[in-house]
Amino acid sequence: MENNAPFAPIKYGGCLPLAWQLKDRRVVLVGGGQVAAGRLTNLLQADALVTIIAPSDSMHSEVHYRICDDETAKTRITWVNRKYVGASDLDEGTAMVLTAIDDHEESLQIWRDAKAAKIPVNVADVPPNCDFYFGSLVRRGPLQVMVSTNGRGPKLASLVKDKIEEALPDHIEAAIENAGKLRARLRERAPGVGGKLGQKRMKWVTDVCEAWSFAQLASLEDEEIGVLLDEGWEKKRVPTYEKVTGRKSTSSWRVSITNVRFADLQILFGFGVGTLAGMIVCLTLVHRKQIFDIW
Amino acid sequence: MENNAPFAPIKYGGCLPLAWQLKDRRVVLVGGGQVAAGRLTNLLQADALVTIIAPSDSMHSEVHYRICDDETAKTRITWVNRKYVGASDLDEGTAMVLTAIDDHEESLQIWRDAKAAKIPVNVADVPPNCDFYFGSLVRRGPLQVMVSTNGRGPKLASLVKDKIEEALPDHIEAAIENAGKLRARLRERAPGVGGKLGQKRMKWVTDVCEAWSFAQLASLEDEEIGVLLDEGWEKKRVPTYEKVTGRKSTSSWRVSITNVRFADLQILFGFGVGTLAGMIVCLTLVHRKQIFDIW
Repeated sequence: MENNAPFAPIKYGGCLPLAWQLKDRRVVLVGGGQVAAGRLTNLLQADALVTIIAPSDSMHSEVHYRICDDETAKTRITWVNRKYVGASDLDEGTAMVLTAIDDHEESLQIWRDAKAAKIPVNVADVPPNCDFYFGSLVRRGPLQVMVSTNGRGPKLASLVKDKIEEALPDHIEAAIENAGKLRARLRERAPGVGGKLGQKRMKWVTDVCEAWSFAQLASLEDEEIGVLLDEGWEKKRVPTYEKVTGRKSTSSWRVSITNVRFADLQILFGFGVGTLAGMIVCLTLVHRKQIFDIW
Repeated sequence: MENNAPFAPIKYGGCLPLAWQLKDRRVVLVGGGQVAAGRLTNLLQADALVTIIAPSDSMHSEVHYRICDDETAKTRITWVNRKYVGASDLDEGTAMVLTAIDDHEESLQIWRDAKAAKIPVNVADVPPNCDFYFGSLVRRGPLQVMVSTNGRGPKLASLVKDKIEEALPDHIEAAIENAGKLRARLRERAPGVGGKLGQKRMKWVTDVCEAWSFAQLASLEDEEIGVLLDEGWEKKRVPTYEKVTGRKSTSSWRVSITNVRFADLQILFGFGVGTLAGMIVCLTLVHRKQIFDIW
């Protein structure tokens, strides 16, 4: 049956990875220990407004630093210097509740309050009381990658994260920034939400991203993005990198240099060592032969 | 100032990537086109129960297949064969609302209804009306990786996803499954939630994952996981792979075979070609010398 199925079979048993949008939204974080310090970093990176409910004793030094000394972070944080007292701690506009405290009973109470108020909640280390889990995160400017093992092992998630960090090309950040600028400026030229036009815009940007390398996208200057729109979008085509930037020779050199991968260096290294080895073997043989000849 | 900061500066401007838990929770999906087909796959993979609100005309063939012919999927789907009518379509227990329809006004109405009912919502292609965005996903059994460009370019997210797929080792899936089994069986031996014991369990599993390679973890048989717990957890140490499995020579051979990376083959290839080149150069020179000698 499955083999005749016209569409790929579903791989059940996973989660739904999502990029949650918290810009200027209020998140309540209960607890001030080491786990809370990690959560706070995650929340600030997402531009959230954070209410920390935690007494000052036993507060992690990083949490204390963000609240008191980090000039930017402290403007985003409201600190309530006491333990959680009840549902009144969860304001109407609260977008999310995170708890990171050792007291299991208190954690469950916060969970019940959050569920009653229909606020998504995560109780650290208690999977059944979590609407969502955290994963290991990679951040490169606008690029964010999350690795989740669905609770199988946070350490392995972190090791996989390390592998991914290694695999990402250096210019990925600039390439994505420029693709974002291209999309934004295209929306200015051809405004409107959804429908046919939206699809047309999306298709053209996709075509450009497929035709151009990461390195080419990364090297685009702001005015060249305008040229790309003039020569591409307006004329319903995808111009070449050379046509847009006029940097045929230099840039392809630059691009090829930045594109030299570690693997290429390894072939080169192997070739070098091999050449030496071949010459040594030959010379030894010839030398021996000369010795034989003299005899 | 920043240089003297005792903790890493925050990289603002991101989102909060989360692994949303939807097992047996109800999600309302409005729309039945191509975008809805993708959303439906994501939701089913997360073991959600899905209510699809979409008239049968203009329904994508994949959505139709999941509703009518996919034996497993159809037991998870409730199909409402009409357009969205109003807030009454969002039941009390709805965990999430996704809309994927072309009608912008209707989308906004669904968004307003969902916000009023305090249900997280995503309106496809309308970022300001999304509590969360979708990313490009990699799935390898229990491992899930999400790539988000924070709206800069879905195509680039998909290209980055391809790079990540390439970089993941083959045995990653089995390694994570086994780490999960190890954690679960450890929790059976040393039950209890949170606190000191939880930290001790976590530390021991982390130590094992750090000391053992992915390939070693992947090759563990079920009964060997028991041995690992006996020889490791019970004795407060991390035993070697050889000690637990008794597969010293075979397994380290097997492990090293599976660990041969493409890069190593490239060095070997370079070496081979280099050796030939070196020998040819030498022989040519020697040959010439002989010719000179004859002269």
